[in-house]
Amino acid sequence: MRIVRVETPAGPQFARLDDSGFVPIEDPFLAAADGRTPSDAGPPVDGTILAPVEPLVVVGIAQNGPAHHSPVQAWLKSPRTVIGTGAEVLVRRDAGTPVAEGEIAVVIARSTIGLTVENAHEFVLGVTAVNDLSSPDRGEWDPRNFESKSGDGYTPLGPWIDTDADIDDVELELLVDDVVVCATGSRELPMSIRECLAYVAAWSPLGPGDVIMTGAPRAQTPVRRGQTVTVRVARMELITPLV
Amino acid sequence: MRIVRVETPAGPQFARLDDSGFVPIEDPFLAAADGRTPSDAGPPVDGTILAPVEPLVVVGIAQNGPAHHSPVQAWLKSPRTVIGTGAEVLVRRDAGTPVAEGEIAVVIARSTIGLTVENAHEFVLGVTAVNDLSSPDRGEWDPRNFESKSGDGYTPLGPWIDTDADIDDVELELLVDDVVVCATGSRELPMSIRECLAYVAAWSPLGPGDVIMTGAPRAQTPVRRGQTVTVRVARMELITPLV
Repeated sequence: MRIVRVETPAGPQFARLDDSGFVPIEDPFLAAADGRTPSDAGPPVDGTILAPVEPLVVVGIAQNGPAHHSPVQAWLKSPRTVIGTGAEVLVRRDAGTPVAEGEIAVVIARSTIGLTVENAHEFVLGVTAVNDLSSPDRGEWDPRNFESKSGDGYTPLGPWIDTDADIDDVELELLVDDVVVCATGSRELPMSIRECLAYVAAWSPLGPGDVIMTGAPRAQTPVRRGQTVTVRVARMELITPLV
Repeated sequence: MRIVRVETPAGPQFARLDDSGFVPIEDPFLAAADGRTPSDAGPPVDGTILAPVEPLVVVGIAQNGPAHHSPVQAWLKSPRTVIGTGAEVLVRRDAGTPVAEGEIAVVIARSTIGLTVENAHEFVLGVTAVNDLSSPDRGEWDPRNFESKSGDGYTPLGPWIDTDADIDDVELELLVDDVVVCATGSRELPMSIRECLAYVAAWSPLGPGDVIMTGAPRAQTPVRRGQTVTVRVARMELITPLV
């Protein structure tokens, strides 16, 4: 199932994406709590696509790339920076050169108490694409990544949650103005998605809708105003124009 | 007004604390959006006190003490770690010695677009007490403070939001087992509460219910299992037993 959130005249609504468009569904996290797939909740609707989830916690995994020889580190990103596909991001003139990082994002289905490397998939609703935008030029004053990672719109997410993706084998591409900058995937993550989830869950409580950004295996590049960044994950495309 | 959240048979409810107990009120953030004080919403109720707000973003201010000579830094703490007064925190055997940090917390009333040092108070619903619990022994592996700051219950908050406190002059005390470890206040913060808010808002979007922990001016101490930590801010007491 491909789960989206759409803005409708009646407010934001979860839906599944099929050939007839957006078919409203019940809250997928309530369904997951009962171990069910979400039921349909009405006829197809029109609407603007939003980020597929409103996370409470967004965790980033740093140093999870082939060039790193130190252990991964986790850090937190502000959920207020989450935006949907197609939404524009303003490049600030006082934050240096932005860097786009294409990553595979995992959406948590339920409380992660009891999550292990072996059973991690049982706690996952699905995967989506994320662009972990940064302004690393702020790093000298900002070793904890607040200024560099917290900008308005700095976490494009979506367009949908793929509940059928295999978390052990997800493709990832980063494109700038439709040119592929990097083609990679979960196979190039030194710490697997399962291991990332087990590490994060061991140190902090997570719950329905939380998002883990699993790291950028080479999929990062400086970008500038006027360019459009696309992150492809599991055959979906997350598009972010920089203005 | 002293705003609390209480768990009632009908679910969590905002209330004001007065001599007759908990008087239910409308959502104080909806009232603040209209520039109003929240109206009463029913007769007094009984209930267990919860954390006074469910923040989406919790920002910490580091290095805001008299012993620091470098600029402050901001960082994010998981809102899933927020608990209310009286709730117990489990001391993990694998995280070293915990440290309690008493801090003045500011609760944001509305979107901080346009917030400056001069008008910062207009964006504040009120102040409360926070205990920014940490496990700094994890620091060697964890420079971004994820393992050390994200533990279950690591952000005791409350018991109420004091909407009449003057953000330029707030008292702060840290007690362990009823012995005062440190008596200080906002006057000892090298970067004032107004300046902290302007700094954070300049780099990241904030909204209703977000919490800024303004830093520990000397108010920190190692603690151990069996002790009870109290943070006093503006005549309220936030109590956390460590078990």
